Amino acid sequence: MKAECKKIGLKEAGALLLAPEHRRIALAVHTAPDGDCLGSALGLGAFLQSRGKTVFLLADDLIGAAYSFLPGIENFLRLEDYGQLEVDLLCVLDAGSLERIGKAATVKAKCYLNIDHHGQNSYFADRLYQDTKAAATGEILWELFDACGWDIDRDIATCLYTAIVTDCGFFRYGNTTPKTMRAAAALLGCGIDPAYISDSLEMKTPDSVRLLAKVLAGLSFAAEGRIAYISVPHELYDPEAQTDSFINYPRYIFGVEAAAYFKAVGPRTTRVSLRSRDLDVAAVAVGFGGGGHLRAAGCTIEEPLEQAQKKMLAALEAALKKK
Amino acid sequence: MKAECKKIGLKEAGALLLAPEHRRIALAVHTAPDGDCLGSALGLGAFLQSRGKTVFLLADDLIGAAYSFLPGIENFLRLEDYGQLEVDLLCVLDAGSLERIGKAATVKAKCYLNIDHHGQNSYFADRLYQDTKAAATGEILWELFDACGWDIDRDIATCLYTAIVTDCGFFRYGNTTPKTMRAAAALLGCGIDPAYISDSLEMKTPDSVRLLAKVLAGLSFAAEGRIAYISVPHELYDPEAQTDSFINYPRYIFGVEAAAYFKAVGPRTTRVSLRSRDLDVAAVAVGFGGGGHLRAAGCTIEEPLEQAQKKMLAALEAALKKK
Repeated sequence: MKAECKKIGLKEAGALLLAPEHRRIALAVHTAPDGDCLGSALGLGAFLQSRGKTVFLLADDLIGAAYSFLPGIENFLRLEDYGQLEVDLLCVLDAGSLERIGKAATVKAKCYLNIDHHGQNSYFADRLYQDTKAAATGEILWELFDACGWDIDRDIATCLYTAIVTDCGFFRYGNTTPKTMRAAAALLGCGIDPAYISDSLEMKTPDSVRLLAKVLAGLSFAAEGRIAYISVPHELYDPEAQTDSFINYPRYIFGVEAAAYFKAVGPRTTRVSLRSRDLDVAAVAVGFGGGGHLRAAGCTIEEPLEQAQKKMLAALEAALKKK
Repeated sequence: MKAECKKIGLKEAGALLLAPEHRRIALAVHTAPDGDCLGSALGLGAFLQSRGKTVFLLADDLIGAAYSFLPGIENFLRLEDYGQLEVDLLCVLDAGSLERIGKAATVKAKCYLNIDHHGQNSYFADRLYQDTKAAATGEILWELFDACGWDIDRDIATCLYTAIVTDCGFFRYGNTTPKTMRAAAALLGCGIDPAYISDSLEMKTPDSVRLLAKVLAGLSFAAEGRIAYISVPHELYDPEAQTDSFINYPRYIFGVEAAAYFKAVGPRTTRVSLRSRDLDVAAVAVGFGGGGHLRAAGCTIEEPLEQAQKKMLAALEAALKKK
């Protein structure tokens, strides 16, 4: 923790970004980057460049092909170019600690600014703007542009809109607020194409659709239909495949109170995602050394797939009986 | 067509609905009812009841189980109760002709009001409010409540929000406008739970998930990956299964320019849905006696599945070559 991490308002954050002494500005996002951090960095970066700043975009990880439509995405620096980088200001977006930005933390900076909507923060920055009620860091950035009276062109709007819709699941998650909607309304007013953005974010590889077919073919039930689960056996496991959304298939079935997604990441290591309507699956996950939220939790069980399934299903059934 | 179908504004529509001589009001929706027409009718119906009107809700079709969460859904009349019904005002929502409401058109009414956002209209009503730029009839109804200063409670807001999100695909379709977003922001401000609504709309039966697995297992490609297609063979065809969304799986694959979904609705009858990024699939569908929009079209081919596939794939390949 910094000797002094000062919490600031939106206008102070804007002034810091446009301060004349901050000529070289790096924008860093978290590892395993998603639409929120990428869109936020690209939108802010495009604006700062238009104001004469030299901007460096840092993401210490592969960027998913689905984000290739974002204007400026090709400008993210390659990891090997970070080492010698020195900037006036390092702005960390959508991450609450330097650990979350991976090797981007090795960049030398005179001043650190942190803008985030997550609850946990290590207070590493000189200045912090944190709003845990914002559905996305992109929503905060829209407020920043709005509060500072900064122009939002079509490309910037596309980036910020992508950021917002990623983190609120296209306005479906509980974090969606009237403010989220007003931000989206304003960005739509900038002439963006919402169908183009959503179509682009939907894009998948043929292999990921085939994997989904195989996984869904194994849809199973326990506790008389109150538990539904799917599995990726180790021979089908691909660490690069995007399969996070698979849990939604067992989750949204009539009568299902708890859903589990078993992924055999190793021959004796099984990762488990849990979802529920109102059962406390965090408590179940904690029993296996994991954690999470009431209705969305996870854990890793050091057992082959079948044994892990047996243990988890028994734990879920016991939890359902206690309800 | 009526001798006189007068186009009116929102306030006139509001006045007509609350006119003292309109004590018994029927609200009718189109056959194969969706979230837009059901939510619109329920939201308006709840308000009219609160103002002392006797309200009859008419839907000449099965109502999907996914809509069972909508407040008041149990109040839709059963078809056999229509015959003797006489009302002062019949308000047709989200449909542009009496044919679209099926047997609900047999109800006797002194006055007909039509509120719709579709482009085609048979001008059957005495009074018509039509806004083809509205993403949903639910969006029009929100404007009606807003223009008339009518109170929107949590239940009404849940119904109108469901109506809007159904027809704009949770703000993903191109019909989403800043006004759609402002309507949603206002409805969220009424204290509704967006995650509860979206979760409820996601609900599926185990059989529909199993059918999806089987259909996706047959994902195929043609024209070197530029065409992707899936099929429901006749032995798997279930007229009651909701499978409209299946076309999105071949559609959103990298490199795919045209997607087709073949459904063997009979041993010698194949229904085909087409989607594209920019290929004119309406022109292709017209060649088979069908029609639709540039990027979303469909037709029925009076051939068994395999022959229908061959003919359609050849037509799509020819269209791609001409591009």
